[in-house]
Amino acid sequence: MSLIVQKFGGTSVADAERVMNVARIVTDTYAKGNDVVVVVSAQGDFTDVLVDKQMEINPKASKREQDMLLAAGEQISIALLAMAIEKLGYHATSLLGWQAGFNTSSAHTAARIKSVDPSRIQEAIDRRNIVVVAGFQGVNKRGDITTLGRGGSDTSAVAIAAAMHADLCQIYTDVEGVFTADPRKVENAKKLDEISYDEMLELATLGAQVLNNRSVEMAKKYNIELEVLSSLTQAPGTIVKEKTKMEKMLISGVAKDTEVARISVKGVPNTPGIAFKMFSRLAKKGINVDIILQSIGQHDKKDISFTVAKSHGQAAVDALEDYVISHGASEILLDEDVAKISIVGAGMESHAGVAAKMFEALYEAQINIRMISTSEIKISVLINADDADAAVRAIHRKFFD
Amino acid sequence: MSLIVQKFGGTSVADAERVMNVARIVTDTYAKGNDVVVVVSAQGDFTDVLVDKQMEINPKASKREQDMLLAAGEQISIALLAMAIEKLGYHATSLLGWQAGFNTSSAHTAARIKSVDPSRIQEAIDRRNIVVVAGFQGVNKRGDITTLGRGGSDTSAVAIAAAMHADLCQIYTDVEGVFTADPRKVENAKKLDEISYDEMLELATLGAQVLNNRSVEMAKKYNIELEVLSSLTQAPGTIVKEKTKMEKMLISGVAKDTEVARISVKGVPNTPGIAFKMFSRLAKKGINVDIILQSIGQHDKKDISFTVAKSHGQAAVDALEDYVISHGASEILLDEDVAKISIVGAGMESHAGVAAKMFEALYEAQINIRMISTSEIKISVLINADDADAAVRAIHRKFFD
Repeated sequence: MSLIVQKFGGTSVADAERVMNVARIVTDTYAKGNDVVVVVSAQGDFTDVLVDKQMEINPKASKREQDMLLAAGEQISIALLAMAIEKLGYHATSLLGWQAGFNTSSAHTAARIKSVDPSRIQEAIDRRNIVVVAGFQGVNKRGDITTLGRGGSDTSAVAIAAAMHADLCQIYTDVEGVFTADPRKVENAKKLDEISYDEMLELATLGAQVLNNRSVEMAKKYNIELEVLSSLTQAPGTIVKEKTKMEKMLISGVAKDTEVARISVKGVPNTPGIAFKMFSRLAKKGINVDIILQSIGQHDKKDISFTVAKSHGQAAVDALEDYVISHGASEILLDEDVAKISIVGAGMESHAGVAAKMFEALYEAQINIRMISTSEIKISVLINADDADAAVRAIHRKFFD
Repeated sequence: MSLIVQKFGGTSVADAERVMNVARIVTDTYAKGNDVVVVVSAQGDFTDVLVDKQMEINPKASKREQDMLLAAGEQISIALLAMAIEKLGYHATSLLGWQAGFNTSSAHTAARIKSVDPSRIQEAIDRRNIVVVAGFQGVNKRGDITTLGRGGSDTSAVAIAAAMHADLCQIYTDVEGVFTADPRKVENAKKLDEISYDEMLELATLGAQVLNNRSVEMAKKYNIELEVLSSLTQAPGTIVKEKTKMEKMLISGVAKDTEVARISVKGVPNTPGIAFKMFSRLAKKGINVDIILQSIGQHDKKDISFTVAKSHGQAAVDALEDYVISHGASEILLDEDVAKISIVGAGMESHAGVAAKMFEALYEAQINIRMISTSEIKISVLINADDADAAVRAIHRKFFD
């Protein structure tokens, strides 16, 4: 008998029919002799419905009250899923974040899980109940409702799996697993049977959007085996774990990220400390910088370019503009029409020529590379947004066909 | 400085505009130097939306999960009202039932409040916050969410007023107060300035539907002054308290209850114990009997008639039919086309002729009286449902015009 944690996203529980479908998956797993803890998100677009209600009343409401509002979404879906499980003849207990022992920091709308006390979950399992837990939410030490921010339900599922030493944590989604590229865009995209935590982390960071990064980091830290699979087909998905059985794959996937912006500061005087102060100003605003390119220009001037999340683009310009101009820079430019294309693969470390092969694919497709960044298992290039899908197809063809 | 508890029902917070209206009432009260605790229900028909969701999935879901589902309704409305109060420039803290210290019995969907620990409410008041509490809900000793059943938000408000020794508990509704009859049906219905707890209890029981009975009982027990008033006009409403300033009114109101059914058992043998056993069978099924009429018939037979809530009518027949027929009764009849009309007034005790005046009004209107029941401060008659509105108007004219 195993303990299995299963997580279902909002689209998987969007209406009564889908809730019943999830209940069948859950009870099938239970009927095979497993203990099951299910983590669910709010139904379909219900979170948007709640946000619209807020916007009508007060767009600048306190984050504490935003959390109070949004947490109602999962409350509805856990109750409905528990009812669906009862309908199939099994016992179910739904638990809110605070009931399931999720103690978090007080950073409303983006709280961190500090600890999970699974005693109520365990007590319900001991009574042979299937336990349905509200993802995305917890409680701080004052007893206020908190939420974990984007992708928080994945993190909730992995946190329970870690706290309860679960044998497997299954993340059900609307795709069949992790693919070598987005299967909606690339015809020959292949599903991976396995992928390592590190590769998955790079893919998640790079916009593959299959798993939330915090959840993969936590799975890696506690060595929780993850499976990404579809709630519709129930075919075997992709296993994410420390060491994959296969030879290290040369590359495991091609990812596209269009939520990126490029900022260029032109004509910065070549004096020490200016670049450092620029980036420390951004850090103070909570703006993460990704690729950085510094080019030596003429007359002791240089150009500094870097990428940030598109949502931080204007804020980054605002934070820097007065400073760099008053220190002699000629201009600061924001370009939001860019995309980051990356290849990820644990095999890169020991194989030369991977970068050359990627650049050759882009050259053949007549796509211009504007910035490059590399790590041990990743190569990223910044290109024009219009070229993004063509670039992914060209690179995928080069490596996988 | 006073502590005022204000309660707003679902229609008062049905949409963004009404939520802002409530926020203005609340902040006006606060700005006058009062501490304010607000209790709100779920928005408009949101509870029906949730019940529909349940019905699609599992009409026979466990009551624990029903409570989990329904409690999400108030969670949404307290967050929205707190946001609206923030919008007006005041500090607000919303609290769920369990956060506000509502400890209840474990009777899901109809829990009783066992105690209220208002320490978190007080702590927020001490920080100069307006506190917005979810009505209708609490938590049992296991930490499960419970709901209080119909009219529970009124009870929540009075319970907070009692626990915190509030100076006043205002129940905002869609009528301007307690009237001598339903103002939508009776042209000359008058708003009462004051009414005693006992009169209010009789009127609530009798279908006047202004205040939930449990809340009035609790207000009487803890001597909490209630005010029933409109959230739209904000005109002074009706004060409910122990002793009214006025002379005891002869009668304070005329009420109609159409949710009643009459059951007649014909030709019961006149042997001891049969009536007792009939009513003990009903009691075992949880069916309350109201008016009872026993008439002596011919040949040592008698007829027993009584009224029950319409929703219990068929169940009462089912519980009795075999028993009474096998003990010699000739038939059992269920009549759902009846209405109970009552007059209530503390002044009845010391005034003769009130009943005669009521019956005269009905006689003049050619309305047949089928059963009569009296108490110190109440006279009820059972009539045909078709005559109900005419009866209320005739009686009201007799006493108030």
